[in-house]
Amino acid sequence: MKLVIGNKNYSSWSLRPWLLMRQAGIAFEEVKVRLFVDSFADEIAKYSPAGKVPVLIDGDIAVWDTLSIAEYLAERFPEKALWPADRAARAHARSVCAEMHAGFTNLRNQMPMNVTAVLPGCGWNVSVQRDVDRIAQIWTDLRARHGDAGPFLFGAFTVADAYYAPVVSRFATYGVHLPEAAKVYADFILELPAVQEWIADAREERDFLADDEPYRLAPDRADAIIINH
Amino acid sequence: MKLVIGNKNYSSWSLRPWLLMRQAGIAFEEVKVRLFVDSFADEIAKYSPAGKVPVLIDGDIAVWDTLSIAEYLAERFPEKALWPADRAARAHARSVCAEMHAGFTNLRNQMPMNVTAVLPGCGWNVSVQRDVDRIAQIWTDLRARHGDAGPFLFGAFTVADAYYAPVVSRFATYGVHLPEAAKVYADFILELPAVQEWIADAREERDFLADDEPYRLAPDRADAIIINH
Repeated sequence: MKLVIGNKNYSSWSLRPWLLMRQAGIAFEEVKVRLFVDSFADEIAKYSPAGKVPVLIDGDIAVWDTLSIAEYLAERFPEKALWPADRAARAHARSVCAEMHAGFTNLRNQMPMNVTAVLPGCGWNVSVQRDVDRIAQIWTDLRARHGDAGPFLFGAFTVADAYYAPVVSRFATYGVHLPEAAKVYADFILELPAVQEWIADAREERDFLADDEPYRLAPDRADAIIINH
Repeated sequence: MKLVIGNKNYSSWSLRPWLLMRQAGIAFEEVKVRLFVDSFADEIAKYSPAGKVPVLIDGDIAVWDTLSIAEYLAERFPEKALWPADRAARAHARSVCAEMHAGFTNLRNQMPMNVTAVLPGCGWNVSVQRDVDRIAQIWTDLRARHGDAGPFLFGAFTVADAYYAPVVSRFATYGVHLPEAAKVYADFILELPAVQEWIADAREERDFLADDEPYRLAPDRADAIIINH
């Protein structure tokens, strides 16, 4: 299997299936298509008719969009139990993933994922805070309900943890204050070896957007690859 | 089972699971929560922690967000074959649904669903056209591939048809020009008895947004319920 992803520093959509597979121990070859450059459209068209990362390639089947990839992997590797076994918990897990898939637009627009940046306080406004509050509520409720079964949202690791991992990264980048139970969960996710591997890879990229990140042009970042677009 | 939905004239998210259940012959009680009014937040909070329509209530399980509801129903009623049986086709169906779930934002912002309005040419711009082209491509490709098996996107009716039904309605409202194969599909969906039932119900509502739809205030619509917000 091949997983086609974008820049690890920026691509929150790519992080989800990448972490899902890495954490679950599903082997895959990683193919990176560089975002924000002119060649992107031609490159990604080789893999997906939707023209977006991520894409999972399994033989002659191309699966795109993170939720579809998650369902595909859950069916393909039932022994990995990527969704909770209990029907009500499974419905709940799918609901919070789908809620993230189409929602939280204020947070996503104002605090784009930027793994290696440190931007405390940036992007905050009251609409963003409503999104933060809802996410903290989801995490807190799930941890209260499933805490005895393990440290993940539903006890054991599921798609839901992979789905909320980019938010954990955003909260770290933008220094978002969280209530205690939510903070404990976020810190736990951030320390997972697979997440640390993603962060280390993002650091290696040094591939930045000049317009959005002028501070990346500082002299000590002379090795940065700057994208002007 | 109860399905909690919003106004039939406006709620594209509600149309998806409603049509899925109606077309598949899954019995449910319909609960309508009026959108855009002050009471909405309190009303929907009775059903869903996410505070949005639609919500499916099955005993003590609340399932929210359309994709999660679709997966729940597909598992609960396997005999209805709500996803294609073939693994590759099923992955494809989930991919085009997930693509719609989080994408086509230009189209969705510029041409909001408005079942009973006639607004040819409104909302169009080149970004919207890119979304229209991609949707027409999806329909045309799927019909070319599965046309022999029946008139729906994957031959027989699946979640994908329910998922794209609000787009069919938008294309009718805004008079969007489609290539022939896509138009044949759109016309077929629009004529389904279940879709016609939804449209008739939307006509009965007469529940309009004054700011967005000043033409609804015309003297011959003196029976309109106007929401000022």
